[in-house]
Amino acid sequence: MRTRRVHLKQRPRGLARPGDFEVVEVELPPLQAGQVLVQNLWMSIDPYMRRSMEAEATDLEPWPLGAALDGPSVGRVLESRHPAFRAGDVVESMSGWQEHFVSDGQPFVPYLSPSHSLAVRASAGAEPRDYVGLLGIAALTAYGGMACLARVSAGDTVVVSSAAGTVGSIACQIAKLRGARVVGSAGSPDKVRWLRSVVGIDHAFDYREVVLRDELRAACPGGIDVVLENATPEHLSACLPRMKELGQVLIAGFVGTYSDRGSMRIENFEYVLDRFLTIRSYRIMDFLDRYDEFVRDMLAWRAEGRMTLQETIYEGLEQAPAALCALFTGGRIGKTLVRLA
Amino acid sequence: MRTRRVHLKQRPRGLARPGDFEVVEVELPPLQAGQVLVQNLWMSIDPYMRRSMEAEATDLEPWPLGAALDGPSVGRVLESRHPAFRAGDVVESMSGWQEHFVSDGQPFVPYLSPSHSLAVRASAGAEPRDYVGLLGIAALTAYGGMACLARVSAGDTVVVSSAAGTVGSIACQIAKLRGARVVGSAGSPDKVRWLRSVVGIDHAFDYREVVLRDELRAACPGGIDVVLENATPEHLSACLPRMKELGQVLIAGFVGTYSDRGSMRIENFEYVLDRFLTIRSYRIMDFLDRYDEFVRDMLAWRAEGRMTLQETIYEGLEQAPAALCALFTGGRIGKTLVRLA
Repeated sequence: MRTRRVHLKQRPRGLARPGDFEVVEVELPPLQAGQVLVQNLWMSIDPYMRRSMEAEATDLEPWPLGAALDGPSVGRVLESRHPAFRAGDVVESMSGWQEHFVSDGQPFVPYLSPSHSLAVRASAGAEPRDYVGLLGIAALTAYGGMACLARVSAGDTVVVSSAAGTVGSIACQIAKLRGARVVGSAGSPDKVRWLRSVVGIDHAFDYREVVLRDELRAACPGGIDVVLENATPEHLSACLPRMKELGQVLIAGFVGTYSDRGSMRIENFEYVLDRFLTIRSYRIMDFLDRYDEFVRDMLAWRAEGRMTLQETIYEGLEQAPAALCALFTGGRIGKTLVRLA
Repeated sequence: MRTRRVHLKQRPRGLARPGDFEVVEVELPPLQAGQVLVQNLWMSIDPYMRRSMEAEATDLEPWPLGAALDGPSVGRVLESRHPAFRAGDVVESMSGWQEHFVSDGQPFVPYLSPSHSLAVRASAGAEPRDYVGLLGIAALTAYGGMACLARVSAGDTVVVSSAAGTVGSIACQIAKLRGARVVGSAGSPDKVRWLRSVVGIDHAFDYREVVLRDELRAACPGGIDVVLENATPEHLSACLPRMKELGQVLIAGFVGTYSDRGSMRIENFEYVLDRFLTIRSYRIMDFLDRYDEFVRDMLAWRAEGRMTLQETIYEGLEQAPAALCALFTGGRIGKTLVRLA
């Protein structure tokens, strides 16, 4: 059987371009005992993938040139020679960037234990695409930061950067659900309007239009309890002078640096010392014991109309490179997905 | 009754000098019901006191000009009109920098609950001076960092800066007792020799004689699990590229900046992001529930010959300003105390 994949053709300098990728046709090997053949339905497009394009990345496994890539996807079993799967099962994997793949099945997603079977989770009212959206890695990152690590509570002031992205917009909503006052920064007037009117946070601003430190002073007159930093070291530095004593800074990523990353510098570090702050760069592996709770909460909140995820959908594998590149040229609100079947 | 105090006469720029202080004679008010009269026996000299001399300090209460100062001390009750104290009781307080003082007695030390009575602790084999030395604030800072927050364990590689100071030298010994490999930096050949021969850490170096980042690479070939940073933002920045994934940086202070502090900058921050590090500035109030355990451990370790605190003792209140100033001109190993009676 033949299928199509996206390969990385060359490593970009600066902004990634669709021409850095190529769509190739490959022959899948015949199914062996213990294997399943999966057709991908949806794949996730995430900012961290720009890091995967760098040969020298150490925070993740760099993508190879001219071979299969990885990324979150959800698919359907077409044929199974594995006792745990039957044709028709919906399965989550890290085998995105291709239309079909053969797998030995366990675990499809390295960060999920086998007990997190999609069969169980699907019963809670999730659709396949939710596993790369509302219940995907970025959503889990937001949940972990707000609910597991910072444990945002009523009355807290929370600042979120890249607030109109997937991590940011879900984090804003979780912080609101927990009773916090939420301030979000984003990079376009459309995003700011959306944050105000749809997400309903307390204050949103376009970081390109303000002096960051002054804006944060005006927006957080009583200080900041928690920062969820998604954007840049500069944004983080500007938050520090506004932090309250014992405040927490969580770093989910520096999306603003992924296309052109050099050595990073943090300013205003005296506030870390004087106010007994904690700065933590975190990852979803650190709170996977809360995964079931995350799924239950997210689906319940959506059912109650208190959680929304804006989606931009690209159609077809050949659009996946453009979908990733567009993350870094601005304009996209919320989650970017590619429909593969 | 008349006694002597040290007052701050003027606020220094840069290095503090003994002339910034003056010794004054004051009249103590007559003892009221509920009060005790205490004669100080020992006072502690700590680097943080240089920060107390700054009018604009926000991390602690700045010392006033021309009035009583505060600082850790241990004394003896001379006269009591307080039901909980009798003449002869040994009491710990924050009423240093004076030979006698009148107090309403509870709590003598703001960070100790009344249940931490000296009567109980004295039974464990501590002498009065231990309460400003081996059992004082700096020792508690070291214990909290190594045992309560970082929870250093066997096989960890731990880097300690200002390793020959009180916090540093006690932290080095606790880390060794917990089975870690310990690397310490200090600022003189004498300190380095002392760290090697007396404290017995695995590697000690004079930070003034090396390229910090290269030295740390050679000293920690397998990476660093925990940094206890006492010195400068530059030292911390140099540690970051050597940190292991999920490593912890604890900041007990930046002693090297106390005499001339501007805005602070951290370099190499990409390692915080990529290796999922935590950086935390901490204070003893965050682990006071471990205070009894701290006292028990420290006294037991000393009794077993596994814990030493080098002391430099100044005689008499009039030497206290010089004792503080000498902390910042180098040369002192371990703890500086002033004997007041």
